[in-house]
Amino acid sequence: MNTDPKLNVVPFVSVDHMMKLVLKVGIDRFLTELAATIEEDFRRWPVFDKTPRVASHSKEGVIELMPTSDGTLYGFKYVNGHPKNTRDGRQTVTAFGVLSDVGNGYPMLLTEMTILTALRTAATSAVAAKYLARPNSRTMAIIGNGAQSEFQARAFKSLLGIDRLRLFDIDASATRKCAENLAGLGFTIEECRSVEEAVEGADIITTVTADKQYATILSDNHVGPGAHINAVGGDCPGKTELSKDILLRSDIFVEYPPQTRIEGEIQQLPAEHPVIELWQVTTGETEGRRSADQITLFDSVGFAIEDFSALRYVREKIAEHGMFTELDLLADPDEPRDLYGMLLRCEKKLNAA
Amino acid sequence: MNTDPKLNVVPFVSVDHMMKLVLKVGIDRFLTELAATIEEDFRRWPVFDKTPRVASHSKEGVIELMPTSDGTLYGFKYVNGHPKNTRDGRQTVTAFGVLSDVGNGYPMLLTEMTILTALRTAATSAVAAKYLARPNSRTMAIIGNGAQSEFQARAFKSLLGIDRLRLFDIDASATRKCAENLAGLGFTIEECRSVEEAVEGADIITTVTADKQYATILSDNHVGPGAHINAVGGDCPGKTELSKDILLRSDIFVEYPPQTRIEGEIQQLPAEHPVIELWQVTTGETEGRRSADQITLFDSVGFAIEDFSALRYVREKIAEHGMFTELDLLADPDEPRDLYGMLLRCEKKLNAA
Repeated sequence: MNTDPKLNVVPFVSVDHMMKLVLKVGIDRFLTELAATIEEDFRRWPVFDKTPRVASHSKEGVIELMPTSDGTLYGFKYVNGHPKNTRDGRQTVTAFGVLSDVGNGYPMLLTEMTILTALRTAATSAVAAKYLARPNSRTMAIIGNGAQSEFQARAFKSLLGIDRLRLFDIDASATRKCAENLAGLGFTIEECRSVEEAVEGADIITTVTADKQYATILSDNHVGPGAHINAVGGDCPGKTELSKDILLRSDIFVEYPPQTRIEGEIQQLPAEHPVIELWQVTTGETEGRRSADQITLFDSVGFAIEDFSALRYVREKIAEHGMFTELDLLADPDEPRDLYGMLLRCEKKLNAA
Repeated sequence: MNTDPKLNVVPFVSVDHMMKLVLKVGIDRFLTELAATIEEDFRRWPVFDKTPRVASHSKEGVIELMPTSDGTLYGFKYVNGHPKNTRDGRQTVTAFGVLSDVGNGYPMLLTEMTILTALRTAATSAVAAKYLARPNSRTMAIIGNGAQSEFQARAFKSLLGIDRLRLFDIDASATRKCAENLAGLGFTIEECRSVEEAVEGADIITTVTADKQYATILSDNHVGPGAHINAVGGDCPGKTELSKDILLRSDIFVEYPPQTRIEGEIQQLPAEHPVIELWQVTTGETEGRRSADQITLFDSVGFAIEDFSALRYVREKIAEHGMFTELDLLADPDEPRDLYGMLLRCEKKLNAA
């Protein structure tokens, strides 16, 4: 019999609560702990159920479901990508997610994931760079100064101590916004007028542009020996940011090859082109950076396990800090087989009132 | 720029609101209109994006995502199936779903779907029976008197005028509960002590058992000429309710063959065994019942398009009746590219307070 009076309830983290949770924990600590959770899950990568995301493409964009499970917990994210959305004041990418108990299938958490995805994407990039960038890296170029740019900057400062930024966007007002948002945090910031200028002296090059049609943000001559490229923006079939020549000079690290082959920069390469799975670098099975001259590329597309980690982390944090409401999401009749009777009892109650 | 002040908000229909909505509309009318919406979507079947559900199986059960889109709207359902859940007072099946705008990817509705799934499953069965049962059918056997049974009875009464029920469950208390719940609605109800007794004189045989391990609920000698079998319970790989011999004597109608071959009764048959797609019967492309002696079988597993119809219908109904709250689910910064700035402004507000 039902002993828990609240089997119907699922904790819900709204956008407002997510912001307050992140601020309560502190952005730096949130990113650092989230990165540690992601790294923890990367290290046990083989236990996860893995599948390329389930995408529904349309002329305007894409809606995707990204499920995964470690056998104990199940998580999925709903996420859209609609580049033209900003024209009428909407986000290019919005997301929400659910964490469930595999044992009974009941959701345990429903949360906004627009902000959370921005944080987990940045945290994942920083985890990759920890293994792939030159250890003495201090300077990062950020090409594309939209919604993801500041999160990348904060994560790279928190996890790697990157404190010199060189910003470029084809829209100078985006660069201005990014620089202003990052003021007072100990960064030295250069607002640059071209990609060439931005990458000058950069140890790490982060590309985070959004538009579907741009083909080559970064050309081969932009990338010097020893660079680590953190390619975040290319994450759709037909959407890439780097010239193919860069790929051919780089050691390429990816999350989940079957998905990255479809969505990442490596869609430009033959299917048999060698790539290294990032999780194997985190476990030590494979080397990350081997030399100071090597060009490393993290071809980031975002994988379900990172969202799983983020859901898991948020669940821990709300247990500590609150910042959720209770959603009456699951039918919970007094007797489990009597769903219809629940409707009848509701009717009686309404008639009596 | 953002002109709508509520871009962050998604209407949310809780379990309590769903019950009140169904009762406000009226169960009969709700089932009838929902069936009409399902039939409407079956008639335009080719326009939908179709994919077998994305299932994550475990020892205890399954968690599934069921997405589909008609090019204008996108819908998905999250649903679990955990037969042992009733032991600790939980539902075997719980569900929730989301309807979104394909044009911008934004969710337009989040709703409980445990109750709604029970209604849409029953409505779909009734739509199928409308085309497949003998026109003069009045008596239905219901084998398995759990959570879905009353909904089936109500739908068959509303849509086909079925007013004689013969109930059987291995647990007589489930039969009692079903009979009590359906009292006073104009049904003549027999509580039977065996499958044999229940199917006697039945025009329609509905099987809705839940447990994974039961293999043969209905044997070949239970089914006389002219019967329509509405097989609802078998909906998992390895879970079937009918003896194979019945299948070989029946004309088999299914929702989406690639999914039914995996999950339905026809997993017992070779992959090339002919089946008829129900949608083609609703459009008139294919005949349904051709003779009074024919045995027809609707091998129901539940397909994403039915959930899509249900989501679409609920969205229309809440526009008329209310019965929802507003969920702060989507981040909506003043300037779309300034997600990080939204966090900063929240911090300023908190510090000022």
